[in-house]
Amino acid sequence: MAKENKDKLVKEITSRDTDFAQWYTDVVKKAALADYSTVKGCMIIRPYGYAIWENIQKTLDKMFKETGHENVYMPMLIPESLLQIEKDHVEGFAPEVAWVTHGGNEKLTERLCIRPTSETLFCQHYKNIIHSYRDLPMLYNQWCSVMRWEKTTRPFLRTTEFLWQEGHTMHETAEEAREETRRMLNTYADFLENYMAVPVTKGQKTDKEKFAGAEETYTVEAMMHDGKALQSGTSHYFGDGFAKAFEIQFAGRDNKLTFPHQTSWGVSTRMIGALIMVHGDDDGLVIPPKIAPVQLVIVPVAMQKPGVLDKARELFAALKPQFRVQLDDSDKMPGWKFAEHEMRGVPLRMEIGPKDIEKGQCVLVRRDTREKYFVPLEGVETKISELLDEIQKSMFERAKTFRESHIYDAATYDEMKKTAEEKPGFINAMWCGDVECEEKIKDEVGLSSRCMPFEQKHVSDVCVCCGKPAKAMVIWGKSY
Amino acid sequence: MAKENKDKLVKEITSRDTDFAQWYTDVVKKAALADYSTVKGCMIIRPYGYAIWENIQKTLDKMFKETGHENVYMPMLIPESLLQIEKDHVEGFAPEVAWVTHGGNEKLTERLCIRPTSETLFCQHYKNIIHSYRDLPMLYNQWCSVMRWEKTTRPFLRTTEFLWQEGHTMHETAEEAREETRRMLNTYADFLENYMAVPVTKGQKTDKEKFAGAEETYTVEAMMHDGKALQSGTSHYFGDGFAKAFEIQFAGRDNKLTFPHQTSWGVSTRMIGALIMVHGDDDGLVIPPKIAPVQLVIVPVAMQKPGVLDKARELFAALKPQFRVQLDDSDKMPGWKFAEHEMRGVPLRMEIGPKDIEKGQCVLVRRDTREKYFVPLEGVETKISELLDEIQKSMFERAKTFRESHIYDAATYDEMKKTAEEKPGFINAMWCGDVECEEKIKDEVGLSSRCMPFEQKHVSDVCVCCGKPAKAMVIWGKSY
Repeated sequence: MAKENKDKLVKEITSRDTDFAQWYTDVVKKAALADYSTVKGCMIIRPYGYAIWENIQKTLDKMFKETGHENVYMPMLIPESLLQIEKDHVEGFAPEVAWVTHGGNEKLTERLCIRPTSETLFCQHYKNIIHSYRDLPMLYNQWCSVMRWEKTTRPFLRTTEFLWQEGHTMHETAEEAREETRRMLNTYADFLENYMAVPVTKGQKTDKEKFAGAEETYTVEAMMHDGKALQSGTSHYFGDGFAKAFEIQFAGRDNKLTFPHQTSWGVSTRMIGALIMVHGDDDGLVIPPKIAPVQLVIVPVAMQKPGVLDKARELFAALKPQFRVQLDDSDKMPGWKFAEHEMRGVPLRMEIGPKDIEKGQCVLVRRDTREKYFVPLEGVETKISELLDEIQKSMFERAKTFRESHIYDAATYDEMKKTAEEKPGFINAMWCGDVECEEKIKDEVGLSSRCMPFEQKHVSDVCVCCGKPAKAMVIWGKSY
Repeated sequence: MAKENKDKLVKEITSRDTDFAQWYTDVVKKAALADYSTVKGCMIIRPYGYAIWENIQKTLDKMFKETGHENVYMPMLIPESLLQIEKDHVEGFAPEVAWVTHGGNEKLTERLCIRPTSETLFCQHYKNIIHSYRDLPMLYNQWCSVMRWEKTTRPFLRTTEFLWQEGHTMHETAEEAREETRRMLNTYADFLENYMAVPVTKGQKTDKEKFAGAEETYTVEAMMHDGKALQSGTSHYFGDGFAKAFEIQFAGRDNKLTFPHQTSWGVSTRMIGALIMVHGDDDGLVIPPKIAPVQLVIVPVAMQKPGVLDKARELFAALKPQFRVQLDDSDKMPGWKFAEHEMRGVPLRMEIGPKDIEKGQCVLVRRDTREKYFVPLEGVETKISELLDEIQKSMFERAKTFRESHIYDAATYDEMKKTAEEKPGFINAMWCGDVECEEKIKDEVGLSSRCMPFEQKHVSDVCVCCGKPAKAMVIWGKSY
């Protein structure tokens, strides 16, 4: 009976190898992370998905505050005239914003867009509050939702509305602003690797791929299980371009009016997409312990037998102060519960039945490796702690090994094409710096430039595409 | 010098008695809680204001979770056809929503409004996920921003966009839903009284004042320092009205298809307005310790003298694990700092100078009463703890005394008019239950019904307005 149910449940998830896109959709729906809504391209984030986001938020927010950032809240609407102040910015975003034209029954004199990002609003505020070098640096962050009118959408990966944080900072010098840009990129990398267990490559975007209005865009790129790249966080250096457009000036140490230097940086609910596609398997989600809404689920076996439920409750109460623990005492069969919590990616399962109680032990099962441990109840919290640490580390290591085994060097254009056709993953290849070559590779090979990684590798002397002297090594890949 | 600066700073805030509305605006701006934006009716919540909101959120979110609620996130846009499904609801909200008509360069086939509240979205989702009585109760909450196209706006009190939480729950029976409605109203009252130190009256709204689409609306009403009422939180019982309109049905215990019973409840950034207007004084904000972003500020005196700054830093480090503490070691004069932190409403100030250090003591000054304490440094954390508790309690008691001394009984219409003209505050008066009398009192006396309080008082036998037999005692007041 239990077995039957389990098989049935697991069958509802398409295998990753059969159809990766369908597998993704199945996991999102079956694990109840998100649901579709009737609002075009918008999703409903369900309790389990939102709980993951809350853990992401809590951790990142702490990191931001420890580096001196303060949270604020800006309006969700931007007047059209404000969006237009910075030329590159409006060109990049105007085609993909939602426009409010009426308030109640009245037509507005100026239409307002729902923020796709808030540089313009922050700049207008900064103009009012930055007067002297003593006001700098200004280190603001905002948690909110933004909207971009996307044509094709997928839950978490690309939705018309999404939740994110956007940091916006102003600095006295270009050097300080550049330092901030790198600091926050490192914060993202730290978070993704050490909390999400997602290995990333840090690098700089090419001009073609950079943020509308930025001088430089830095990115952390992660590899999904299908070999595609997911841009998981970006950090932008603006120079004083926006400051000039918005006429933001401060009295410097030399008492001269000076334009401040600016950054912005953001990550979004998209990271949940990375978590699913890096760690998930054919049985569903696998969530790293540091981010998991439930780190340990207790499943009583032969629950009707005297003493079992009491023991399970006692363990639940004892472990609750230390772990995010759930006791599943619902009236379903244990096998059904095992499959259900595996599908939801709970890192560790504790089984406790009459025989275990007799022996003063319990069974612990890892979600990532399915390894089973018979553990004495005395001191079980130490073992749980150890196992959670081990799961966290080993999930990262496995993802890293996978990624490293799916990165290929290509010295020639033919080699690049052949690899792209045959092997999912990233390709390291040299680039001359011309956008023409970038576009040609996109059109002919089907790969886009992911980034110029900080850790450069010398693959050859010349551009893989045109044969002119190379300026940088670029990581190329298919992207979400 | 310090004295001068203090006088100057304080002068920038209009006295409460001179012009309460201007005093409010001054405090909001000078304490840097919020700023105006160029987006009509929208405000910028600045770091100090947002830190207050974060403390409110953290505390309430914990209370919600402890009572079994889960957080979710719904889309910010509602298709017009969806808003129209429940007749009373659309009538109430359609005149005050912002309409999105274009996405990018394309005109939409159906216009979408920015959520003014999300009952309709939750109902549509519930229709998909509620199938059996086993799925109930469904206890959801959402933290988000909403938008209502207001004509006149004031920071925190009434803004086009505001931040709030909206709880939406579904229950098997009417009784359970009513219980939830009351439970959440009590949660709000508990939070307002025991964290915000704002005494409230719990009661039911009249039909005229209830939420569009609700069967019953409950409210917590607070009295501001000018005697006006601020509706500080509401909890609605919907019966099965929305469920019928949205065709949400579940298989009951008897296996028959049944409509679930619904509630919703919300509080918003408006509560920050209550905090300002209940506790503030002519020197600015006064914030209760449990909500204050900074509970204790350390101001070193004669900072340039050897040992002072070291001692201040040592105290800061020692107190930080236990309190939200700030060390103000900026290069301003102590007097300026005193005034600044008083204006920001920091509950407790510690002054530490060379003479204090010699004597092994410090000076603690309460913001609420200005009382000064000379306290030995040995064990100072115990005294700080005690004082913060005392401030929290005494702020509540003072607000309660103020409120009680500004509530008047009126047995006759003349008495009601006279009191309304002469004395700011609330009036207890009997009511027949007819909306005509309610409207007449609004027009002629200038008071609206705040609520029919749970704790009824028998003021007279008949309606204060028409003389017909009274059905309930109503609290009447001017409202924000």
